[in-house]
Amino acid sequence: MAFKIIHKDKKTNARVGVLSTKKGEIETPFFMPVATKTSVKHISSLDLETMGANAIISNTLVLHLRPGEKLIKKMGGIGKFMNYDGINVTDSGGFQMYSPSIYISSNDKGVWFRNPMSGEKIFITPEKDMDIQLDLGSDVAMCLDCMPLLSNTKEEIRKAIDKTTLWAGRCKEHHDDKQNKKLKDKKQLLFGISQGGVYPDLRKRSCEELLKFDFDGYSIGGLALGETHIQEMKAIEAHKSVIGEDKPAYLMGAGHPVEILEAVSRGVDMFDSRYPTQNARRGTIFTWDGKIKILNKKYESDKGPLDKDCDCKVCKNYSRAYVRHLLREQEGTGLRLASYHNLYFLQRLLEKAKAEIERGEFGKFLKGFKKRWMN
Amino acid sequence: MAFKIIHKDKKTNARVGVLSTKKGEIETPFFMPVATKTSVKHISSLDLETMGANAIISNTLVLHLRPGEKLIKKMGGIGKFMNYDGINVTDSGGFQMYSPSIYISSNDKGVWFRNPMSGEKIFITPEKDMDIQLDLGSDVAMCLDCMPLLSNTKEEIRKAIDKTTLWAGRCKEHHDDKQNKKLKDKKQLLFGISQGGVYPDLRKRSCEELLKFDFDGYSIGGLALGETHIQEMKAIEAHKSVIGEDKPAYLMGAGHPVEILEAVSRGVDMFDSRYPTQNARRGTIFTWDGKIKILNKKYESDKGPLDKDCDCKVCKNYSRAYVRHLLREQEGTGLRLASYHNLYFLQRLLEKAKAEIERGEFGKFLKGFKKRWMN
Repeated sequence: MAFKIIHKDKKTNARVGVLSTKKGEIETPFFMPVATKTSVKHISSLDLETMGANAIISNTLVLHLRPGEKLIKKMGGIGKFMNYDGINVTDSGGFQMYSPSIYISSNDKGVWFRNPMSGEKIFITPEKDMDIQLDLGSDVAMCLDCMPLLSNTKEEIRKAIDKTTLWAGRCKEHHDDKQNKKLKDKKQLLFGISQGGVYPDLRKRSCEELLKFDFDGYSIGGLALGETHIQEMKAIEAHKSVIGEDKPAYLMGAGHPVEILEAVSRGVDMFDSRYPTQNARRGTIFTWDGKIKILNKKYESDKGPLDKDCDCKVCKNYSRAYVRHLLREQEGTGLRLASYHNLYFLQRLLEKAKAEIERGEFGKFLKGFKKRWMN
Repeated sequence: MAFKIIHKDKKTNARVGVLSTKKGEIETPFFMPVATKTSVKHISSLDLETMGANAIISNTLVLHLRPGEKLIKKMGGIGKFMNYDGINVTDSGGFQMYSPSIYISSNDKGVWFRNPMSGEKIFITPEKDMDIQLDLGSDVAMCLDCMPLLSNTKEEIRKAIDKTTLWAGRCKEHHDDKQNKKLKDKKQLLFGISQGGVYPDLRKRSCEELLKFDFDGYSIGGLALGETHIQEMKAIEAHKSVIGEDKPAYLMGAGHPVEILEAVSRGVDMFDSRYPTQNARRGTIFTWDGKIKILNKKYESDKGPLDKDCDCKVCKNYSRAYVRHLLREQEGTGLRLASYHNLYFLQRLLEKAKAEIERGEFGKFLKGFKKRWMN
């Protein structure tokens, strides 16, 4: 089994687990910074080590376009290419069907994208997507999914689920075939992705269809896109009610601290999002007392650290006034310092969550965190 | 005395010295990364420490515009503001008279600039420039100078020298007045700047006029702007022939490795330039065997370090192929890794130069370096 649970919280469904990959083991729950093009924006792999980020996610489709999976394979795979010791996860690119600039159309066979650099049309089938991810050599791969938009009708979402299931089966079959040649402990894990928007009945249906393929984990797709918090949590609960406790659950695209903790309390194990880095670049800084807008005039001569309760190297060395000045000037160093801090904050948040689950006190911690954060 | 020579090379005029500032001592010759807005582009003050960059230069006029010298003073001065332990040098902004986007005009009293953010006109007098630099609290300040363009006639350059001398006297007087209130060992050093373009007679005249003010050091201005190598070296020699050996000489804006070493061999002690960082961002990487254009296709799958003879953290951790990919994608991390390496290279070059001067073998080292670099 690629996943085992080692601690369960007393009053919530939160759990601490261990996911075993070809690169090594990683404790869940964890948050993955987004390294779309093999680099987290302004953050090096050495920074990821010092902040304790033990997994990151990159994008299959984007890397297929540049520099190409063949180059990365030649360089020893994505982890070696970027000299990253943690777990490399890849997203399939299904999410890019949300990107009008590169998505053209899809049919049962696959998806047409337009290469934004060359203008060339490319056709990505589930099989092709698996081949690319195997070449990239990530430790955890995602099935090519068909993600409906929030604005889609229930009927349209039903069709997206049908396609997602069809593709998931083809992904699994092809991925298994290609991996048989390899040693067991060198296998890339493969996760299915459930769809269904905010409709619990559709989410459950999607999960039921995916379950028969026996994936190593099940991702929750098409959320964190603007639905209400209650809708999002109900969809997570629907997913979990079908998938059960023995498989890791990955809520794709969620990066808000409260959203993450609420999902953890429902048994979600993995997270990724641009939220912390994108917010940082725009001057929104995470603190244990909630977000602050560092560009506000009131921080102009603030000699304190970004967060008084943070021990990251940014908080230990730089003032709010200095980071504010650098962000105002759009200096690369400012983007980096703010990004580092926000990512560090999320890593500590998940570490704290794990410790509280082990103590059986996660529910209390969540309540206390929310009170301070939303104050 | 703010400057003393501790080693002299045997066959060239190169020397190792110690410059004493209110922040502490620093060995010469040294190269200063450019931190115009209190940040070297993509490089933090912690990076500057790990690469051994013990001095940096910022820009008085740019900081006057944003965030303003009053804020920086309130934050404890430029060194504290950016949490930098090394020596902070400030340039006066005279060089910005080369910038058509902000320079309007100058007269004997001072210079009119336009604030590019607000459109507002501002008048900078030599006295005002000193006040700003004292507020910034840099360890070494520069006089406001009037820099002629390379294309100016000899007569125009002569007029620029007259104005530079006039302003230098006013800078010195005002700076002395303002500093009398302070303790002797807390004094900001003040350097005069010679002009004269590529004409040795004019350069000498400028130096003779400046000498009477007894500055702590003498900068060589208006070079590294496109003149030939021989013209540049002759101008340096003219400057040194008048100023003599007991004062530090600072060649402003020079950052090419060979140019630096040739100037060192003529008794120049300080350097600064955007050259290493700007080149890095454009994919030109310094190695002990000369520059390489990392964006060239031939480095696409090169697993080697940027420079096989470099022990910087970039060379120890990342491949040419990876840095190339990140630079192609204009990822902040790529700009940073390449900038770090090039700056590290120059720091090691100057350390090596010091060691060779101490051994009395600088001339031989220079010859050997040039042979490899230009190969």
